Amino acid sequence: MTNDQAQEKALNIQFLLTGTELMVGDIVDTNSVMLAQSLKNHGVELTRKVTLGDDFDGLVAEIQHISQQADVLIINGGLGPTEDDLTAEALAKVTIQPLEENTQALAHLEQWCDRRGFRLDGANRKQALLPKGIDVIANSTGSAVGFSVLHNDCLIICTPGVPSELKLMWKNEILPILAPRFPDLDKVKTLKLHVFGIGESAIQNLFNRQLADWPASIEVGYRAASPFVELKLTTRSSAAEKLLPVWQEKVTVLLAGHIISTTAGESREAISIEQCLVDLLSENNQTITAAESCTGGLISSSITRVPGSSSVFEAGYVTYSDRIKSELLHVKEMTLNDYGAVSEPVVIEMARGALNASSADWTIAVSGIAGPGGGSDEKPVGTVWLCWGNAENLKTQRLVYPTSRVNFQRFIANVGLDLIRREILGIEETPAYFSLKGK
Amino acid sequence: MTNDQAQEKALNIQFLLTGTELMVGDIVDTNSVMLAQSLKNHGVELTRKVTLGDDFDGLVAEIQHISQQADVLIINGGLGPTEDDLTAEALAKVTIQPLEENTQALAHLEQWCDRRGFRLDGANRKQALLPKGIDVIANSTGSAVGFSVLHNDCLIICTPGVPSELKLMWKNEILPILAPRFPDLDKVKTLKLHVFGIGESAIQNLFNRQLADWPASIEVGYRAASPFVELKLTTRSSAAEKLLPVWQEKVTVLLAGHIISTTAGESREAISIEQCLVDLLSENNQTITAAESCTGGLISSSITRVPGSSSVFEAGYVTYSDRIKSELLHVKEMTLNDYGAVSEPVVIEMARGALNASSADWTIAVSGIAGPGGGSDEKPVGTVWLCWGNAENLKTQRLVYPTSRVNFQRFIANVGLDLIRREILGIEETPAYFSLKGK
Repeated sequence: MTNDQAQEKALNIQFLLTGTELMVGDIVDTNSVMLAQSLKNHGVELTRKVTLGDDFDGLVAEIQHISQQADVLIINGGLGPTEDDLTAEALAKVTIQPLEENTQALAHLEQWCDRRGFRLDGANRKQALLPKGIDVIANSTGSAVGFSVLHNDCLIICTPGVPSELKLMWKNEILPILAPRFPDLDKVKTLKLHVFGIGESAIQNLFNRQLADWPASIEVGYRAASPFVELKLTTRSSAAEKLLPVWQEKVTVLLAGHIISTTAGESREAISIEQCLVDLLSENNQTITAAESCTGGLISSSITRVPGSSSVFEAGYVTYSDRIKSELLHVKEMTLNDYGAVSEPVVIEMARGALNASSADWTIAVSGIAGPGGGSDEKPVGTVWLCWGNAENLKTQRLVYPTSRVNFQRFIANVGLDLIRREILGIEETPAYFSLKGK
Repeated sequence: MTNDQAQEKALNIQFLLTGTELMVGDIVDTNSVMLAQSLKNHGVELTRKVTLGDDFDGLVAEIQHISQQADVLIINGGLGPTEDDLTAEALAKVTIQPLEENTQALAHLEQWCDRRGFRLDGANRKQALLPKGIDVIANSTGSAVGFSVLHNDCLIICTPGVPSELKLMWKNEILPILAPRFPDLDKVKTLKLHVFGIGESAIQNLFNRQLADWPASIEVGYRAASPFVELKLTTRSSAAEKLLPVWQEKVTVLLAGHIISTTAGESREAISIEQCLVDLLSENNQTITAAESCTGGLISSSITRVPGSSSVFEAGYVTYSDRIKSELLHVKEMTLNDYGAVSEPVVIEMARGALNASSADWTIAVSGIAGPGGGSDEKPVGTVWLCWGNAENLKTQRLVYPTSRVNFQRFIANVGLDLIRREILGIEETPAYFSLKGK
């Protein structure tokens, strides 16, 4: 561990989320994702997160326990007007202070009700009852203020559960309080590599074997977003940042054509494979068509998801039956009879037929067995033939990828997009997924 | 609190989620939502949830601590092949057992690799290294098995982080292990209504206005899975269960054709709109084709996602450009020139062309402006014309649904499927979404 990392680990920051709705699966917790992302972007990693229902004793014990470990505790939820909102009461018990009507909080509530033409009633007024000695944190949109208190040397910050209120309070009020505690602010740099066609463990093996001297100061993180992997390189010091280009280059050589796009900066999203393809075609003033059997329209649908794809895509052929393969793409009946629909000669004729019918520059044709039925000993479920390229140069490949129907279709559709992307870019390297050949 | 509820509280069940990706906001935790919902549906409320990064000492301390409080601890994540997957090692330390190559896990891994034509390598092999004395839990889809062990009288169950693997393992392997511990198991009954084309707040308004005397003993829950809504009716006593059929009938009358499917029992998944449609066509020995412009293949792709769809679907036409609409579906150039591609005459000719070309019994044709570009004053982004039916009877409808490109495509593709479903079922009622007509 470098000094930089040791220093950073010094900040122990934990979240405590409260609310029965979080415990019964009624809502997905996006609040803590938002805060964790924001922390990460400021160079701080959340240490631990605890989620509890609306249980007073549980809440008190948890706050007490966390305050003994953490430097900062963010409590989210339980500030509202109803009986099951217990945060203020629990904090009062933990800090051994009485609840009192906080004048700042009350003034805020009165103003809030006034603006809406409400009368401040008993239930709402509860939101001004806060432990003695706390500091109020303004809530510019909601009725309940936040508040903070130091206990066991831990800064405890109580925040509202409504995402929009939390977001504004976090940005405008809480981050300025916390920022002086972030040691690495401005030092964190991230690079995200959007990778297709090589799995997480295969990447890890490549790293172990070929980049054994990887520097500890460049963190490597993986996130699987099937069938893609996002590889993230993070540095947390200017010294490490200086190393980054050299090691980025080594990773680029190692993963080569499997890298779809590289994005600098945490908050920016990776560029998708279909977006890449549409951009490449667009730059070259070229068009593409798809002749799909087992993927059933998914390749066309992926391409047309991209805004502006109409300039590169005119036609897609979903030829699910043999008859339609013949009628629409002029696949010869003899070819179908002799080799079967899932065969090299058939995908070649599908590809030629699609190029002829559409006048597109590029095509991808696929025919396979998505399952769960339809497999045989010779052609088991998961078998697929692909043909791709242009009128001058069509290539073919057989893969065997036995998985669920939906995963098969998603993977093979992306293989199709990837193969054209590789052709246009002139990548000659063999994709890792070509080893999926079954027995 | 009733006696039933007091008794139910007896089960202390906690989740421990591990993975740095959960701590830096890279992913939203849907796993625990899925498990919490499932527990709730079996009458059990999750007691507490802790989320930790890939931190070995933290993990060991947390497992030790929770095992002293809880009856059941579900650990999720950290079973993979990479260095930051620490669950097995942490469990070994907590239970003071050595890690050993588990023969069952190894056999599973070998089989898993074999089926994919991989060689079992070092990184993957790590997934067979498990603490001595554990019980293996089968993973039917992924490479890493789950496992369980009793420690401090707490049943600790380790599960994979990949949602699809967890879902299957939970349903097929873990629920049967846990079910005997659920006190209210047989008392909870749920009914799930899979609804399309009417929003959550519109449903809520209908309930408030027309079912004002709804009994408190039948819980109503909503889950939005855009563009669908899942409406869940839950009863927790035999008295309430007896009321259910009467109120189910009232809801069925209220929502009528908007109900795609109704499923009794929690663990069963709702039948999707595309599955419904394929089943209906299959029963009638009929076929369908799609002529798609703005949905770009999504209708074909939705239908062909369904296993066995080849018996009802032969051909799909993705006619993105005017030229292809003419060449492939024989839409007249004059019609395109006179009315534009997004017009009633054009979708009618697309529908006729698709029926003629494919000889299918049913068709759905769509042409619209998915955006973000391409809109005009007369035809703003979100405008779409649909034509659906069979050779004897084609119907048309114009909708305006301005939203993101991806949401537009998803919604309109499902509208297409729904319109054919309604035709086949002979539903005469006007769908709520026909009111989306813009200005």
